Amino acid sequence: MKKKTLCLADIAEMVGGELVGEGSAFISNLTSLDAAGPEDLTFLVKNSESDRLVQSQAGAALVPVSFSTITAIPVIKVKDPYLASALVHNYLLKKPFHAKGIHPRAFIGSDCQIAAEVTIGPLVAIGDRVVIGAGVTIEPGTVIGDDVCIGEETYLKANVTIAEGCTLGNRVVIHSGTVIGSDGYGYATDAMGFHVKRPQVGKVRIDDDVEIGSNVSIDRGAFGDTWIQSGVKIDNQVQIAHNVVVGPNSLIVAQVGIAGSTTLGRNVVLAGKVAVNGHIHLDDQVMVAAGAGIHSSLPKGSRVAGFPAIPVKSWAKSSTIFAKLPELYSELKHIRKTISDLQTKMQEKIETTSEK
Amino acid sequence: MKKKTLCLADIAEMVGGELVGEGSAFISNLTSLDAAGPEDLTFLVKNSESDRLVQSQAGAALVPVSFSTITAIPVIKVKDPYLASALVHNYLLKKPFHAKGIHPRAFIGSDCQIAAEVTIGPLVAIGDRVVIGAGVTIEPGTVIGDDVCIGEETYLKANVTIAEGCTLGNRVVIHSGTVIGSDGYGYATDAMGFHVKRPQVGKVRIDDDVEIGSNVSIDRGAFGDTWIQSGVKIDNQVQIAHNVVVGPNSLIVAQVGIAGSTTLGRNVVLAGKVAVNGHIHLDDQVMVAAGAGIHSSLPKGSRVAGFPAIPVKSWAKSSTIFAKLPELYSELKHIRKTISDLQTKMQEKIETTSEK
Amino acid sequence: MKKKTLCLADIAEMVGGELVGEGSAFISNLTSLDAAGPEDLTFLVKNSESDRLVQSQAGAALVPVSFSTITAIPVIKVKDPYLASALVHNYLLKKPFHAKGIHPRAFIGSDCQIAAEVTIGPLVAIGDRVVIGAGVTIEPGTVIGDDVCIGEETYLKANVTIAEGCTLGNRVVIHSGTVIGSDGYGYATDAMGFHVKRPQVGKVRIDDDVEIGSNVSIDRGAFGDTWIQSGVKIDNQVQIAHNVVVGPNSLIVAQVGIAGSTTLGRNVVLAGKVAVNGHIHLDDQVMVAAGAGIHSSLPKGSRVAGFPAIPVKSWAKSSTIFAKLPELYSELKHIRKTISDLQTKMQEKIETTSEK
Repeated sequence: MKKKTLCLADIAEMVGGELVGEGSAFISNLTSLDAAGPEDLTFLVKNSESDRLVQSQAGAALVPVSFSTITAIPVIKVKDPYLASALVHNYLLKKPFHAKGIHPRAFIGSDCQIAAEVTIGPLVAIGDRVVIGAGVTIEPGTVIGDDVCIGEETYLKANVTIAEGCTLGNRVVIHSGTVIGSDGYGYATDAMGFHVKRPQVGKVRIDDDVEIGSNVSIDRGAFGDTWIQSGVKIDNQVQIAHNVVVGPNSLIVAQVGIAGSTTLGRNVVLAGKVAVNGHIHLDDQVMVAAGAGIHSSLPKGSRVAGFPAIPVKSWAKSSTIFAKLPELYSELKHIRKTISDLQTKMQEKIETTSEK
Repeated sequence: MKKKTLCLADIAEMVGGELVGEGSAFISNLTSLDAAGPEDLTFLVKNSESDRLVQSQAGAALVPVSFSTITAIPVIKVKDPYLASALVHNYLLKKPFHAKGIHPRAFIGSDCQIAAEVTIGPLVAIGDRVVIGAGVTIEPGTVIGDDVCIGEETYLKANVTIAEGCTLGNRVVIHSGTVIGSDGYGYATDAMGFHVKRPQVGKVRIDDDVEIGSNVSIDRGAFGDTWIQSGVKIDNQVQIAHNVVVGPNSLIVAQVGIAGSTTLGRNVVLAGKVAVNGHIHLDDQVMVAAGAGIHSSLPKGSRVAGFPAIPVKSWAKSSTIFAKLPELYSELKHIRKTISDLQTKMQEKIETTSEK
Repeated sequence: MKKKTLCLADIAEMVGGELVGEGSAFISNLTSLDAAGPEDLTFLVKNSESDRLVQSQAGAALVPVSFSTITAIPVIKVKDPYLASALVHNYLLKKPFHAKGIHPRAFIGSDCQIAAEVTIGPLVAIGDRVVIGAGVTIEPGTVIGDDVCIGEETYLKANVTIAEGCTLGNRVVIHSGTVIGSDGYGYATDAMGFHVKRPQVGKVRIDDDVEIGSNVSIDRGAFGDTWIQSGVKIDNQVQIAHNVVVGPNSLIVAQVGIAGSTTLGRNVVLAGKVAVNGHIHLDDQVMVAAGAGIHSSLPKGSRVAGFPAIPVKSWAKSSTIFAKLPELYSELKHIRKTISDLQTKMQEKIETTSEK
């Protein structure tokens, strides 16, 4: 497949940057500082790493606006080189969608509405009354339940499971092993200690531009829906329980678990392995450090860490002191002794003085 | 499919409740307070939420025995409305099993004994000598190894894996992406630091009425079996190592990990993300709070939290003080200074007095 | 299938052990102390468990060199009975590879190079230009992407996913539900809070003799590769982010998460549920206790625990004191009071003395 190319002047224009040096060279690849060769564009995120750029074999670089090192290669100064490089890289890699149609060894149920322009691989199983939009790709081993609705340009990797009735928006990407719409974990326990399953009759709704990593589990709602709103990015092995709502553009890093009916606002960030209690609300822009456990709701913009979570600065201080607890303990024993001695001396003194 | 209906008087009888109001209305759906309409039955778990019932559009409600609010709608007073609503909901939703048989695009090995009354979907792969009871459903993408035995009315969702030799009881439900019978993690390390795999020749035995969520891993035993006893409910992304035994009706919430050869008694509850060490025993009714780490055996009815786990009340108190450690630390420094001052004063005093 | 047998004298020679007793008995099975019968070989790891051997029905046993109990059965004294038993067990169980070829219901893409001596099951999907070495087994439901290269004698269990371009060495074992080569979690966030995906153009490279458990996720590199080096053993539900390098013979226990670009040296051990930060290095033989959180690089041989991690002995002491924090807190309050009393008395004393 022929690669796309762009000249540096055009790249500068695309990212709203300032070209320093010759702009006529054509670029067809972007890569890291270490890997870049003379044909490649690279990017420098921080001026403090400019040595790495000087040593790089790159043909050109996206650099911060404040970059002032003199280089032998042309550079494009731009506000956010990390973002700019992602935009350029996506542009260079983007290929037009070529629909391969439905593979004869895919299995399609009855009464489905599948756009003509799709790629559905071999050994895909699709249930009844499924709706699939144009530009969709479904890789082998993926199973789609009855009554699922999939928007345009959505990409389901191999061995994904979408259970019955769930809806996916446009440009959703779901990686392998992920399960959308398993039953929520809901039981009522009788007097004998036997657990009666509560029917889970809701579904999962996933909005546009959501990406979900591998081996993720998102449970269907008990009554209403579990809802992943637009632009949310979920990493691998995340567990999202029934009736959770994740607000737009939130980031959920690997191995996070969110218990039932909890809601997240916009641009919330949960770092790896965070545990979130059920029936609480994390407001917009809340940021939670890795491994934290959130037991109650958090106001907008909170920054927390620890299990149970406390403000991130307090946690850092308390953690430092935690490591010194044995010292503190000895100190306390020493203080007890000193005070006891003082008391004795004082008593003696009082008696001595009284005797005088 | 025609929905089942029940009149309120019959529902009251079914759940052993007391009907207050007119009992002739027929109900075909049960849903939450917020979602219920005039045709729906709903349920109120706690009297403290009775405002929500007053505002609900529901046609009738299951309420606690002590419920005393006057409502325009008929209510059924019952000991445990949460349990009662589950029983009624299950009754209304239950459909007779319609066996669809073995799909021509499923693959079945040799010498299998498969009951006539089953539904085995397309793109299912079943090994040799597999036994499958009546009323079983197996969804697409699921793979069953050789010599597996599956009881009656068991339901395997899409993309499940049951490895060779494992046995599943009756009415077991396993959600997508779950793996039963992967090898246990057992190696012997030689003098060079190279790890020699220990053969894992046991299997996994799952008893009746067990439900297992999505993307769960249950390893086969090293020599004997890993055993999930009857009525156990396992949430998503749980890891159960070789030779673990989980006692009847235990609840294991999402992302728990249990190390090898550990045994759990009856009605043990492990909340989300709990870690349990290997070769220990958690006795009946032990309850472990989310995120806790259990290093040693626990007697019946223990309630623990924290990593390492301690009694849950102690943990709550210690956690509160953890957040105040920086204050404590300052306080201690202050005390040290005060004592030192006191000592100095005392010394001066003694000297002064002596000089007199 | 006929079982292999070995006489005790030959077993002693195989494991470099000293036979005590009669060596002519033939053995075809090895099992645990509890399960062994008169035809079976068993093994005793520690002399302290010799009572269990005395009670065992085993026909013979591998025991430590220092074993001195007199037994009715022949024993083989060996330096490491745990290792020796694994070697003997593997020998007894090892069967010659019988290639069954490519099942007619597997799907194979174009331009693949697949050795004649393979077993590829039904409902396997293999992409284009895939290379597969001799002795490979691929179970049903497994999906192999385009341009994947798989070495000799590698075994992929059911429902595994290997994404495009990844390479697996020789004698690799991958359990069900595992995903190799999902996209790394990399986004650049624009001024509006919208996340732009960074293309993930690297791959995953897995070297010889690696074993990977079930439901594991290993992401492809962003630019370069994610690399699992030879002899590494990974347990279930582990998450390995883009560009991580895991050094030879490292052990990664269940539910560990390693963030992007982190590197591990040789024979590193991460116990269950450990969280490792991105862009750090854990040097050779580092050992991390279960549930620990590693925020920064660790030198060779470090032993750490806790979240954030500290030396394991400090952590044990601090954890003990953590449980006593409420006592400490009361103590501190008491001390404050005592000091205040002392100060008052001292002041009175000074005043009294001055008045005299």
